[in-house]
Amino acid sequence: MFNEVIEVINSCATFLITAHVRPDGDALGSELAIYHALRGMGKNAVVYNQDQTPDVYGFLPGSENIIHSMDSVNGFDAVFVLDCSDIKRVGNEADRIGSIDKIISIDHHVSGGTFSEILLVDPSASSTGEIVHRLLNRMGIAITADIATNIYTAILTDTGSFRYSNTGIDTFRVAADLMGKGADCRYIAENIYETRPVIQIRLMGKALDTMEFYEGGRVGSIYVTQEMLRREGALPEHTEGFVDIVRSIQGVEIAVCYYEVSRNRFKISLRSKGTVDVEKIAGKLGGGGHVNASACRVEGSIKAVKGKVLGAIRAVCSTL
Amino acid sequence: MFNEVIEVINSCATFLITAHVRPDGDALGSELAIYHALRGMGKNAVVYNQDQTPDVYGFLPGSENIIHSMDSVNGFDAVFVLDCSDIKRVGNEADRIGSIDKIISIDHHVSGGTFSEILLVDPSASSTGEIVHRLLNRMGIAITADIATNIYTAILTDTGSFRYSNTGIDTFRVAADLMGKGADCRYIAENIYETRPVIQIRLMGKALDTMEFYEGGRVGSIYVTQEMLRREGALPEHTEGFVDIVRSIQGVEIAVCYYEVSRNRFKISLRSKGTVDVEKIAGKLGGGGHVNASACRVEGSIKAVKGKVLGAIRAVCSTL
Repeated sequence: MFNEVIEVINSCATFLITAHVRPDGDALGSELAIYHALRGMGKNAVVYNQDQTPDVYGFLPGSENIIHSMDSVNGFDAVFVLDCSDIKRVGNEADRIGSIDKIISIDHHVSGGTFSEILLVDPSASSTGEIVHRLLNRMGIAITADIATNIYTAILTDTGSFRYSNTGIDTFRVAADLMGKGADCRYIAENIYETRPVIQIRLMGKALDTMEFYEGGRVGSIYVTQEMLRREGALPEHTEGFVDIVRSIQGVEIAVCYYEVSRNRFKISLRSKGTVDVEKIAGKLGGGGHVNASACRVEGSIKAVKGKVLGAIRAVCSTL
Repeated sequence: MFNEVIEVINSCATFLITAHVRPDGDALGSELAIYHALRGMGKNAVVYNQDQTPDVYGFLPGSENIIHSMDSVNGFDAVFVLDCSDIKRVGNEADRIGSIDKIISIDHHVSGGTFSEILLVDPSASSTGEIVHRLLNRMGIAITADIATNIYTAILTDTGSFRYSNTGIDTFRVAADLMGKGADCRYIAENIYETRPVIQIRLMGKALDTMEFYEGGRVGSIYVTQEMLRREGALPEHTEGFVDIVRSIQGVEIAVCYYEVSRNRFKISLRSKGTVDVEKIAGKLGGGGHVNASACRVEGSIKAVKGKVLGAIRAVCSTL
């Protein structure tokens, strides 16, 4: 499908570039890599995301030009919809974006991007950024340091620093190429992993005090209540990554983080090691996700919610 | 120097393989990669380390065959001394090991390995493992899955999961090659990063309660006392990595962890971001290390020790 995509790029002059709501490193890095490439070709390009860019990605070259309202822009010949399995994932402007003449979908999710006929979808790629790299190479576009920094960030964040099973041989080959083109892996890693708000670390200390284990240590959990957030002056986003600390413990196969969204309403993050399938567990409770990372919402007292979640875990994992 | 090393390997039959005391992932992975390669060539090879293999590296293929006493072994034609800038770093058997006829030194430290005339030293390599990979390729030795797993572990651990500045273009190229030869990056990362003792995580929660900041948040510190260890049933090794959590905080340029070795005697770990040089700070207090990671020991009450360390930081970093 590369040829169809390249044909659209060559024949159009004005592009919108967008991705899913709550953009992550792969969404932002992929968008900005294409943005720099198109501008390098002398094309007009605008990056639109419904949601603001998280502070941690403020170092990405071009991120300062991302817009968050489509009120004053129009007349696009084509739109790139990136890292979206469904065009609705772009947010409130989905209908307007869906009405643009040419829609190019680039995605690495299994059920990705089929809302468009012009698509590059490869579930074997680590990230949308890795597919963007392939596209730019096919087009013979020079990878500048700005492009390299953006694609490297996409890959780094979506592979959890080359630790997840989506990391492939090509992922490392692309990383080598990007370093050669000016991506500074230390600078990028410092920006991604060493800019945590101090409030988050203080809250983490408190959350660790709530650690509990079940099933002989194979299930571990922590919780964060609204009261804990208030006491530390923390925001819901500061709980990000807490569940991964529980997963990092020896013997833990399933990690659970209970986050109290509001009184007696909990958001539950589930993580697993190896082949233990937390998607099935989340599914039993009305949620979803991937084999090793899923989420759901459950109402009730913390005690009742814990009981429901543990029940679902035991029902799915009869061998635990 | 590859030819001299290959000549020794080809002409000898019985090899000792060793590395520095308190072996890390690079030392163990490099040793075991050479062990498997030599045995694949039909040679006799023994891996000796003075210290036990840390539990976290128990998954490395061949680690079960490492010996920790040289009482019942002798008659070596040659010895590989790996990841050592000085042969004394192998421990109490340094004299005996130094008396073996042929000594092959492989190292990536700046002042590495010059105790031998048969040496492969490349400070631009990420790790000793990366140089071992180069050697095996030069020799035309097939990289088996066991060899690939060991070298990948060496590289992964010495680059902090491809995040440190020693990560080079070749590092990623080698990682790609090793994956192609059977290194399972997810399995290895799970073994390295997701097997933390629960006691360590509980202690971490307590240590985070001691966080303090100076110089407008550019210096952050935590401490662990003997009393805290006792209360959690933790060991000194469980404090590993705590200083990195402080470094991961936004705005922190220098992270300090004070660990009370015994009453009024502290081991101090220093970490920095970017070009801030903690080696100079440690040097002022009688310690040493690298630009971004150093350590020293200071005696006195915790208050007096903190004062000395902050004094050294202010003396070295006048711009802080």
